[in-house]
Amino acid sequence: MALGEFDLIAKYFSRPARRSPLGVGDDCALLAPAPGMQLAVSSDLLVEGRHFLSTVAPERLGHKALAVNLSDLAACGAQPLAFTLALSMPRVDEAFLDGFARGLYALADAHGVELVGGDTTAGPLAICITVFGEVPAGRALLRSGARAGDDLWVSHPPGGGLGDARLALEMFRGTVAVTPDFERLRLAMECPQPRVALGVALRGVATSAIDLSDGLVGDLGHLRERSRVGAVVDVDALPRSAALAAQPRARQLECMVSGGDDYELLFTAPSAQRDAVHAAGAAAGVGVARIGRIVEEPGLRLVDARGEPVRGGFAAFDHFATP
Amino acid sequence: MALGEFDLIAKYFSRPARRSPLGVGDDCALLAPAPGMQLAVSSDLLVEGRHFLSTVAPERLGHKALAVNLSDLAACGAQPLAFTLALSMPRVDEAFLDGFARGLYALADAHGVELVGGDTTAGPLAICITVFGEVPAGRALLRSGARAGDDLWVSHPPGGGLGDARLALEMFRGTVAVTPDFERLRLAMECPQPRVALGVALRGVATSAIDLSDGLVGDLGHLRERSRVGAVVDVDALPRSAALAAQPRARQLECMVSGGDDYELLFTAPSAQRDAVHAAGAAAGVGVARIGRIVEEPGLRLVDARGEPVRGGFAAFDHFATP
Repeated sequence: MALGEFDLIAKYFSRPARRSPLGVGDDCALLAPAPGMQLAVSSDLLVEGRHFLSTVAPERLGHKALAVNLSDLAACGAQPLAFTLALSMPRVDEAFLDGFARGLYALADAHGVELVGGDTTAGPLAICITVFGEVPAGRALLRSGARAGDDLWVSHPPGGGLGDARLALEMFRGTVAVTPDFERLRLAMECPQPRVALGVALRGVATSAIDLSDGLVGDLGHLRERSRVGAVVDVDALPRSAALAAQPRARQLECMVSGGDDYELLFTAPSAQRDAVHAAGAAAGVGVARIGRIVEEPGLRLVDARGEPVRGGFAAFDHFATP
Repeated sequence: MALGEFDLIAKYFSRPARRSPLGVGDDCALLAPAPGMQLAVSSDLLVEGRHFLSTVAPERLGHKALAVNLSDLAACGAQPLAFTLALSMPRVDEAFLDGFARGLYALADAHGVELVGGDTTAGPLAICITVFGEVPAGRALLRSGARAGDDLWVSHPPGGGLGDARLALEMFRGTVAVTPDFERLRLAMECPQPRVALGVALRGVATSAIDLSDGLVGDLGHLRERSRVGAVVDVDALPRSAALAAQPRARQLECMVSGGDDYELLFTAPSAQRDAVHAAGAAAGVGVARIGRIVEEPGLRLVDARGEPVRGGFAAFDHFATP
């Protein structure tokens, strides 16, 4: 059965709206942030082959497309409210849409965020989600607030760490042998969990934050640049899963430091806030690891547990670089 | 010179932000609508081959990508404030980016709207813009407000009309012979002018509105459905350019009725508001033509100037239909 564009929207993407006065189906969605609140907005475009592999299950893709946007809100300490979805796909594939919508709505429901508008069109598979959250005026976590002397922290799954998504990607690429952990690693790559509760709990505690999408080196670079500071990172303090810890050390570092797709929060806080950071992590149900410190001298220095410099040309993940 | 993703953003898409407390470069943009205002949001994804031809000049593409989004705000009677841009392209092409940014910013400046965030990635050429406007709470123009007895109106360029974009497309396709008007028709297709001022002027005058992106039949269908009404359209009252009027009548009707890509406003108003509608058009510098009326009986009837039914299976433009 061939469904037209509008039937499609109606069938998969119409649910009663609670927060938007209009919901899906008019030219615009209407949003009204509560008094004293600022609206935080982020938009991400995911395309096949760059942000996901063609082998991904539609349900996981629906999850991930929203997750990476919620992760941006988390990095600002914003509480998610609503999102729009613009979807381009080669043909009307109901099996795909059914799974995609299921994964999308499951995560949306988990975070109390609703679809308020969108656009579907024929074309290469591409997903653009714009997400809206609210944060009390002046209390958003920014990339620009890190100060020399601050601790540097990263969140991680309980019992897990950074780099699992990259390790899974390398197993897909065949550069690393598949291990019995593969399905769990694949889940890290395909179903990242946005650290929304942690972001909200870090308001007034953290001095700056960013989410790890392009890898530690790259995203810490953005944070350093916006804050005009340098950083020292102890690579031995980086949290890692047992699966990654079983890899050779060079591979571990590459995955944790340049990996990308972690969607953990990288943030800074004064050392007086260490207890508060641990409390925020505990309240949010995620691990928090202190991995270094902010310094005045520009640049990034990677050191080991003894303070010795770590060699290796670690790069940020660049979507335009040849894979 | 190979530019990375982040240099790219910085080079072409960083300008000082006036309205957003942050501007481009953090995880989220922050927006704060004025007290009593609702935020109107719309998101459109444009992909090559469906929404634009590969022959389009980058500058015109930059214009059009923003124009179609501003047109959605216009249809809600919202005043544009800001937008985000997510861009996927096969490679870093500075000539393309330079032209694209020029066209985009020219239209943004004309409407006082600023870029507040975005995302760039490698992939097929695709452009997702999400636009934000504000409208006094409860005063947005909706698709659902049309009432039986209302007049049906459409905006048009001074001296022009509907269907020029479709006529240009047919000339590109080779199904219609190219005429000396080709460059002007092409401009209608590639550089639509969003009717923002008209939308704002129609607050409190129009009972419903929608912008014409999928063609008169299709978009009037959305309006009828949301308002639960029928409509009668006098095809002889449809505004048309001299270039289109020189085509055979069947071609004229096809272009005006099923064409798509007009980005004019289709709206309804009580007959007592006729003077107010003309005043709104004059204030906005655009033509307004009364093309029919809203009726209780569901469905759409196309008639000629004598009230005789017009035959012909006119369809809405469907992005998933085979071109």
